[in-house]
Amino acid sequence: MTYEQKLADAVEAVKREGRYRVFADVKRRRGAFPRADVLKGEAARPITVWCSNDYLGMGQHPAVLAAMHEAIDLVGAGSGGTRNIAGTTHYHVELEHELADLHGKEGALVFTSAFVANEAALSTLAQLLPGCIIFSDEKNHASMIAGIRNGRGPKHIFQHNDLADLEAQLKKVPRETPKIIAFESVYSMDGHIAPIGAICDLAVKYNALTYLDEVHAVGLYGPRGGGVAERDGVMHRIDIINGTLAKGFGVMGGYIAASRTICDAIRSYAPGFIFTTSLAPAVVAGAVASIRHLKSSSIERERHQERARTLKRMLTAADIPVMSGPSHIVPVLVADPVRCKALTDVLLDRYGIYVQPINYPTVPRGTERLRLTPSPQHTNADMEHLVNALTELWSQCPMALMESLAAAE
Amino acid sequence: MTYEQKLADAVEAVKREGRYRVFADVKRRRGAFPRADVLKGEAARPITVWCSNDYLGMGQHPAVLAAMHEAIDLVGAGSGGTRNIAGTTHYHVELEHELADLHGKEGALVFTSAFVANEAALSTLAQLLPGCIIFSDEKNHASMIAGIRNGRGPKHIFQHNDLADLEAQLKKVPRETPKIIAFESVYSMDGHIAPIGAICDLAVKYNALTYLDEVHAVGLYGPRGGGVAERDGVMHRIDIINGTLAKGFGVMGGYIAASRTICDAIRSYAPGFIFTTSLAPAVVAGAVASIRHLKSSSIERERHQERARTLKRMLTAADIPVMSGPSHIVPVLVADPVRCKALTDVLLDRYGIYVQPINYPTVPRGTERLRLTPSPQHTNADMEHLVNALTELWSQCPMALMESLAAAE
Repeated sequence: MTYEQKLADAVEAVKREGRYRVFADVKRRRGAFPRADVLKGEAARPITVWCSNDYLGMGQHPAVLAAMHEAIDLVGAGSGGTRNIAGTTHYHVELEHELADLHGKEGALVFTSAFVANEAALSTLAQLLPGCIIFSDEKNHASMIAGIRNGRGPKHIFQHNDLADLEAQLKKVPRETPKIIAFESVYSMDGHIAPIGAICDLAVKYNALTYLDEVHAVGLYGPRGGGVAERDGVMHRIDIINGTLAKGFGVMGGYIAASRTICDAIRSYAPGFIFTTSLAPAVVAGAVASIRHLKSSSIERERHQERARTLKRMLTAADIPVMSGPSHIVPVLVADPVRCKALTDVLLDRYGIYVQPINYPTVPRGTERLRLTPSPQHTNADMEHLVNALTELWSQCPMALMESLAAAE
Repeated sequence: MTYEQKLADAVEAVKREGRYRVFADVKRRRGAFPRADVLKGEAARPITVWCSNDYLGMGQHPAVLAAMHEAIDLVGAGSGGTRNIAGTTHYHVELEHELADLHGKEGALVFTSAFVANEAALSTLAQLLPGCIIFSDEKNHASMIAGIRNGRGPKHIFQHNDLADLEAQLKKVPRETPKIIAFESVYSMDGHIAPIGAICDLAVKYNALTYLDEVHAVGLYGPRGGGVAERDGVMHRIDIINGTLAKGFGVMGGYIAASRTICDAIRSYAPGFIFTTSLAPAVVAGAVASIRHLKSSSIERERHQERARTLKRMLTAADIPVMSGPSHIVPVLVADPVRCKALTDVLLDRYGIYVQPINYPTVPRGTERLRLTPSPQHTNADMEHLVNALTELWSQCPMALMESLAAAE
């Protein structure tokens, strides 16, 4: 068997399961979020985006775009190097100050993505703290799993948001053994929120570091956009906060915020931080502008929460199997990968509604879903159009709806 | 011992070896590359950058900057999602076409960095080809080492650019065992160039895939900037080419180019590709403009090579211990980490010359060096100033020069 055949077989396996990804070719329209065009061959068709993680539409904010334009005019395109070798621009220094301030920490470190930040920080901590056991929520994101795996230390998986299970596992380990509890604030595919304060209580009781991924919360929660930990008044109790400059802040890149010593150790040892060209100055400048805006403006956050509540209410009223949860994420259960893909194809082609099917491995098999992300810019009319479309599609296939409703219970 | 103390000790170990990194806070001046300002506290001082990997100064090219401005005006700041979930913009589609064409391959995949591209591609290939042995040049970049390590398959390290050693190791393995030979075209810290064609001969003879990192060569070598493999007429013989959108192309991001099947397999399985926000459209648009320009313009490449040759000649004439090599990299041996750092501090403070010390783990201990990167924009006057400064510094410490010269032999 040739190499090509082996790899083609691997792709075929994905196709057989109905979870082969076809990327929609999308061109957003500046200033008109969530409007965009989808391109198929030469033809462009207008759509409404219902699955973007630009949760607040900050990727279109005039202050963000102005900062990006200005940085290009002042310093050019790329940073020109790694952080150590010519690639620490003044924008990077400013951004790290801004992030440390956002989270009330001594320091922050910027990475090319939040995936890299999680991978680099967790794998490096595991290596610098010999014997360290990482206690990881079973629903943690792929990037945390990669960091834990690549750190090669022992790990214990605890049941999702389950304090009793976490404590039972912590209890078994001697107090002096180094420990990290790694978890998320908002679990992005279900919309669950972690009991952060109670986890911090356990961390104190059992002498563990806390590592919190706030990727789906920074910019969106807390009086200054510091995340759910800020909202809950427990941000100071978290040792390492991970966040993104995409999603809530609308640009790209990732970071950690922590004590000066923790940042310095990761900065000095993590290959994923050291050996890579730093973020382009325009990206960094845009992120700084976005963070500053959201520190002082809460309108976007309030409207965002209201829109999510409204959409959930409308879906529930229409008997669409929306999965309940306390956050801004609005998942609708389909519970079958092939049907999930077919549903989104029809939504796009017939209704101009763009939402990607969420299939395994992003979510467990049997829990395939649509994941709707209402933003402050989605109107009531947008929501009515969406709910009507889903109602029509499910009414054409009552069996599928019943199965989804049954699975949602 | 507390967590903070353990991590502080790890940082202290780096400091004791004299290889603690202090990032220079640099603000480039658009249109005036390699001029920049270095910031210390409030004060800004003009410098000449001598260590940027923006090898051709494309990070300042008007066509690149115009494309970035235009993309911001048309679609905004971030892409708004992962490649699969709302984050494949039309710019990404165009860029992958441009890259496939550049390397004469069926497909290309763009990643947030070339580090991530190497890590994701190599670890995924190792997992999709069970039992696959990776043959890795001992001087391969940290990102390839990360990919090979995280793939968790068997690996054989061969001596740097040593065909006999590579063949001796290939010979020991049954023909039907899957194999990948992973190597670089230009080794960025020494400036060595691999015998690509001869390695392809061995790959055919022993039935191995070839994986070539052209990060320090794309844009810089070959009639259209396809890299050293293009220059040598062997690009079609390489199965997977890895490259960067930073360095030669002056922006940021990374990629692989390969057959449709290989790209599709990595696209479908690599967590580092799947679970991360895609590059910002402005970054992608800038990269497309840069690649297109360098496909049709060779002036930058020719001037770049001439500048590197001229600088090497001037250093040699002044008895500065320049390390010989056939590429555009100009390393000057110092052979001591503390002295290397002290030298660059004085160069910056007294002469306005910015060059970072290159210490372990970037290079082996005992081979610490200055790594000079002359660009088409560095003038003869810049070079004279640099050579005079180095001559003065070494004349003040003849012992250090003698040791460096001895180590260079």
